[in-house]
Amino acid sequence: MEHILVRTNGSQADQETAGRNRELFEMANITVINLMSAPGAGKTSLLEATIPGLRGWYEVAVIEGDLQTDLDAERIRALGVPSHQIKTGTVSHLDARMVNSALAEFPVQGVDLLFIENVGNLICPALCDLGEKLRLVVCSVTDGSDTPKKYPAIFRSADVIVVNKVDLAMSGGVDVAELRRNLREANATAPIFGVSCRTGVGLGAWLGWVRNAMARRSVLVATNA
Amino acid sequence: MEHILVRTNGSQADQETAGRNRELFEMANITVINLMSAPGAGKTSLLEATIPGLRGWYEVAVIEGDLQTDLDAERIRALGVPSHQIKTGTVSHLDARMVNSALAEFPVQGVDLLFIENVGNLICPALCDLGEKLRLVVCSVTDGSDTPKKYPAIFRSADVIVVNKVDLAMSGGVDVAELRRNLREANATAPIFGVSCRTGVGLGAWLGWVRNAMARRSVLVATNA
Repeated sequence: MEHILVRTNGSQADQETAGRNRELFEMANITVINLMSAPGAGKTSLLEATIPGLRGWYEVAVIEGDLQTDLDAERIRALGVPSHQIKTGTVSHLDARMVNSALAEFPVQGVDLLFIENVGNLICPALCDLGEKLRLVVCSVTDGSDTPKKYPAIFRSADVIVVNKVDLAMSGGVDVAELRRNLREANATAPIFGVSCRTGVGLGAWLGWVRNAMARRSVLVATNA
Repeated sequence: MEHILVRTNGSQADQETAGRNRELFEMANITVINLMSAPGAGKTSLLEATIPGLRGWYEVAVIEGDLQTDLDAERIRALGVPSHQIKTGTVSHLDARMVNSALAEFPVQGVDLLFIENVGNLICPALCDLGEKLRLVVCSVTDGSDTPKKYPAIFRSADVIVVNKVDLAMSGGVDVAELRRNLREANATAPIFGVSCRTGVGLGAWLGWVRNAMARRSVLVATNA
């Protein structure tokens, strides 16, 4: 039995809400990045490593999705950046309605770049459109090289991929070249950045990509004005 | 808003199927372990490290749950142990009906110990009873020390917990004592074993626990006979 995985939402209503979110973000000129990974791959660590490099250039805000703790939102607030926690309870991923409701309590006027950090899960978020512009998937070297083969839908849906914990490849006995081949097989076009949020390796190139994505957006705004 | 997470199935029908599976396993005197973790924490590696230590003592079989690959079932077959792959497609966890259907194609008569390796996911399997006797949750040191705080339901549901990749704690900068405290907070009673499936550290104590669990079962069988 073969299954075709497609990026879709649970219902027509969810799709409409995602569309409304997208319109709202575009009208307010907010670039929204849906940040997804397995538990513990380093989504929040990547935000902690990225946000200081954008300071003074762009207004950044973060919506955090977790089952029931405020831990990640607190880490983001410690950076001096506005952060809002969505607690999903037993629900395994964020959906467009949760994000829409959050916006009522968490005004994002004036924000240039909004990260939405999804619940740690490599399956359910793959099928769910929040109204984002870009989908960023983080995977960890220490989870092994076959992750993209086993959870292909989420990697296929990615606009950009960050491979974290590259500093542990040698001691963890993981073949990073094979991981990269498997990522490329799941997604032929998304840029792939190898980083270590802990040691700082590779973060310059990643930050360059983010700044470039935001600069292209600014040019677009200027042209439209 | 506070949420109470309970171990339950999606429907009455699922619960009845789980009950039927449990009866079937008990009548056939098969000890069934539902093995759960996040993607890449090392479920299959733990089986590879455990099964050879039971050879000659117990007949072991494995049901593998994955979205769409045979990779794990092939690794288990390489050990000379019968293995059956369930492909869930887009479904984020195994359920009792999938296991029940698998038993029609994968006879387990004569098996003493059946591992059911769930799909890599720390959320959805927590709520789903397959008809197992024991719930084994694996977590990886490299996912950080706050995993039990962020995904408490699955750790709360565990009968035994294995912490894998302890050899990477120092190089990954992870506080294993804090991880252990957080595990204990989520689950006050389950035995916790720290291991490295790659280096072999800690596997002796873990194997002792499995052998002991199986020996207690044999005594029970002898008494009943």
